[in-house]
This record gives sequence, C-alpha cells and structure tokens, in this order.
Amino acid sequence: MLYPQPMNRLIHELAKLPGVGPKTAQRLAFYILNVPESEVAKLAEALLEARHRIGFCEICGHLTEVSPCSLCSDPRREQAVLCVVEEAKDVIAMEKTRVFKGQYHVLGGSISPLEGVGPDDLRIKELLQRVHSGTYQEVIIATDPNVEGEATALYLGKILKPLAVKITRLARGLPIGGDLEYVDEITLGKALEGRVEF
Amino acid sequence: MLYPQPMNRLIHELAKLPGVGPKTAQRLAFYILNVPESEVAKLAEALLEARHRIGFCEICGHLTEVSPCSLCSDPRREQAVLCVVEEAKDVIAMEKTRVFKGQYHVLGGSISPLEGVGPDDLRIKELLQRVHSGTYQEVIIATDPNVEGEATALYLGKILKPLAVKITRLARGLPIGGDLEYVDEITLGKALEGRVEF
Repeated sequence: MLYPQPMNRLIHELAKLPGVGPKTAQRLAFYILNVPESEVAKLAEALLEARHRIGFCEICGHLTEVSPCSLCSDPRREQAVLCVVEEAKDVIAMEKTRVFKGQYHVLGGSISPLEGVGPDDLRIKELLQRVHSGTYQEVIIATDPNVEGEATALYLGKILKPLAVKITRLARGLPIGGDLEYVDEITLGKALEGRVEF
Repeated sequence: MLYPQPMNRLIHELAKLPGVGPKTAQRLAFYILNVPESEVAKLAEALLEARHRIGFCEICGHLTEVSPCSLCSDPRREQAVLCVVEEAKDVIAMEKTRVFKGQYHVLGGSISPLEGVGPDDLRIKELLQRVHSGTYQEVIIATDPNVEGEATALYLGKILKPLAVKITRLARGLPIGGDLEYVDEITLGKALEGRVEF
C-alpha cells in the first residue's frame, strides 16, 4: 500500500523535476501536505500561468508575455549593437550589469557535440538574418566561458566575419569553467567594458 | 524588468519549497517553461489533489484518504502489538521490512526542546488513551536513533511503564545519528526482530 495514491502521484510528478530524486520528492510532498491549501493553490496557479502566458520573443528569443518583447520594442535602447547570449537567463545577467543598453539575440543553447546540439539546433539562422539586414555596427558574442561556449563563439566569429560588421567578445576577465549566469555583476560589467575585437 | 511577471511569480513560489533557493527556483522555472503544457498541468493537479484529498487517520495518525486508514481497518493485521513512530514516512519504512504486521501510532514528530516541541505537541495523549483501552500486549517504540528520538523514547518508556504493558524498543543495530527513514530494509528488519525490553 505505502502512501495514499494522491501522495504517490505527487511524489512521482515532483521527481520529474531536474535535480529532484525520490527522497527529495518525498520531502517536498510532505511539505505540501502541511502548508495551507491556499499556498498550494498559489504554487499550482503560478506553474500553470507561467507555462501558459510566457513565450519567446520573435525577434530576440528572450522570454516574454508579448512579442516583440519589452527590450526589443524599447526605442531608448541602442539599435546598432547586438549582444549574442546562450540563454534567457544570460539576458538577465547582462541587464543586471547596467553596462549594456543595446539589443539581444538568444541562441537557445550552445554548440555541444556530446549532447547532440549542432548549429542548426540554435537560433543562428535568425542571427545571420538580423546581421544581414544591416542595422548593426557591432555584434558582441557573450557565450558562456566554458568549452561549449568557446566553441560556439569561435563558430559565430567565423560565420559573422564575412558580413563586414565589427565582432567583439567579452574580455577574458571571466572566470573560465563556469556559467555566465553565476558571474558577479561587477566582473561581468568589467568584462563587457574590456571586450576585444575578434 | 528582468523576467516577465508570471516567471518572477513562479520563481517566488518555487523558492518557498524547503531546500530550494533562488537559483534552484530559477532553474526549475526554466524547466517548467520548456516541458509540454500537459506535464505542467499534471504537476499542478497532483499538488492540489494531494493537498485536498489526503488527511490523517483518526486512529493512528498516518496519511490517508479515508479514516480509519487501510492499516487500522485491516482485520488480518495483529491487533495486540502497537508500534510507535515519529512520522508517516517511518510507517512506510516499517512496512517495507515486511517484518511487522501490527498496529501503528504516528506521533507527528519528536520531543525537541531546541525546536520548541514538547510532549503536548505530539500525539502522546492519544497514545496513552489507546494503550489504556487495554487491547495491546506490547508497545514497540520505534523513534529515530538520534538525540530527539532517544529523548522521546525515554519519555514514552517512563509514562507507559505504569500501564502494565510490555514495552520494547528497536535493537541498537540501528546506525546512530541518522533518520529512521534512511535505514536499509534488512537492517531495519533485523533491528525489529532483535528488539529488547525496556
């Protein structure tokens, strides 16, 4: 018999979350049984609402409720500089530096042969179209400072080079081996200011 | 701006879960945005259903959809032996050993002055009533083999002693300093078989 069926079902569903094993799922399920029903309702609603209302910006690929997103449609932002990042959370990290005021392009990941992610799986075709359209004077490549991010940066450098646009990348002040989202804001801001040409 | 509002709300709700900090909440939220909407609906439903349908057995205090629970209302189980545990998950651990076939009593925790939990905060009054009613020949105290569990066991031993019932506790084959739920089934089964009288 073990647990009542709704409890087993909840543990099963929670254990699907990344980084949540059976023991953690059990712990979370016990927590859920002991908080007010209104709290559980708020969590359930937040899950459904986020999944239902949030999509991706048709221009930059960032998370948004309306497309184009508030960043792409903000006329006060610089129109001539495009910053290429791997993930939506990297946009957040860049915005927190308050150093960058241009446009973004979210690739949706990085080139990783081990995980079977190639250039065609990323928003690289869309990036080329944007750069081709000719409004950008500079493209900043801001991929993660790890193996996959470096590979992606090198690939982008190679295919963007013929397009007669200035291509830069973040200064090597970034700690190597980490994820961009974990870099502190000062370091990331400095790396942005000290960016070097390809 | 950072994330769209529903994303911030989801991160906020997820970060309330035990052991989930802001970074983990963000990671989980990104995962949620990328799974099919039907999967999110299943998780949300499981949360609501578990919280709504699961309560506590009026007799033993175990988790159940119907009260009395399936263990208390099972006529094939031994009626004369009562096993006292701290939490519902300890009932599950005991059942997995397949060694014990009697009745349970879930205390709902252990005596812990540091956390402000005293005897009156546990289902000890209910335990005394059950033992007083006189149908039990033996009470097995199966609290966790840690400081709080030991304190609870000693307290229970003292107040149950005058009731003319055989009081036993699990053998000290249990690893000291851990939680009962993490003990492997064989060890827990052996500890149950080798239980000693107070």
